[in-house]
Amino acid sequence: MTENTVPGRRVFEGIGVGEQIGATTLVFDRARLVAYAAASGDRNPIHWSDPAARAAGLPDVIAHGMLTMGAALDLVVGWAGDPSAVREYGTKFVAPVVVPATGQVEVEVAGVVRKVDEASRTVTVELAVTHDGAKVLSRALATVELR
Amino acid sequence: MTENTVPGRRVFEGIGVGEQIGATTLVFDRARLVAYAAASGDRNPIHWSDPAARAAGLPDVIAHGMLTMGAALDLVVGWAGDPSAVREYGTKFVAPVVVPATGQVEVEVAGVVRKVDEASRTVTVELAVTHDGAKVLSRALATVELR
Repeated sequence: MTENTVPGRRVFEGIGVGEQIGATTLVFDRARLVAYAAASGDRNPIHWSDPAARAAGLPDVIAHGMLTMGAALDLVVGWAGDPSAVREYGTKFVAPVVVPATGQVEVEVAGVVRKVDEASRTVTVELAVTHDGAKVLSRALATVELR
Repeated sequence: MTENTVPGRRVFEGIGVGEQIGATTLVFDRARLVAYAAASGDRNPIHWSDPAARAAGLPDVIAHGMLTMGAALDLVVGWAGDPSAVREYGTKFVAPVVVPATGQVEVEVAGVVRKVDEASRTVTVELAVTHDGAKVLSRALATVELR
């Protein structure tokens, strides 16, 4: 334990490129999309109306990309042990998560350390985010600063 | 009108680097943060509890970074006229948005076209996101594909 160690917070020293940070499963259903629509301010009906989704050329209602992106980040935040550690986050959106009218869908998230920067005490984690075996996000990279 | 023109959708042709895409004001209050916490799955108390925020070294409760990032993107989505146009989005989080126990805070968002790519028919917009004159997000870059 160094003086900078805070209980629950990940310590920078000893983290190496290639380290797995763990994995989690996100669970989405229509109720969650509706709640997210209200809270986020994104009321586009492709996220809650079957006819609107189909009119837009989608197979069915899809989850908000920002919901998937945000929920996936929780794996990194939990690993860092500090909700204000995230310095940078970005991704490519490669496929939507289709959410049927009933039941739930699962999105798998796993993270691996891609870069460790001693000078800034930052660690960049790449998240693999998949649904039914297909990539949902690509180059999902989150950088956290550890104390 | 070309064959590819869909009402409300931004047409790729004619968009130039430096073009302003408009501006908007986001309004956050504690109720919105609570709703976002529930919908996003991020229940960290620094986003709804004063004592928890202060214990974490913050001046007060702060908005979720992903809420600010996501809400700012709505300006780009509205400009593109197509909620499934976003191909890539990333940002640096440079300062939190402090949300007091009562009342509302405003976050200003404005966007400018930084890159136009003919081959992929994509346009990259940089968002300026500020609160009380200070930058909240930095290098907030969203790339949309137009048809």
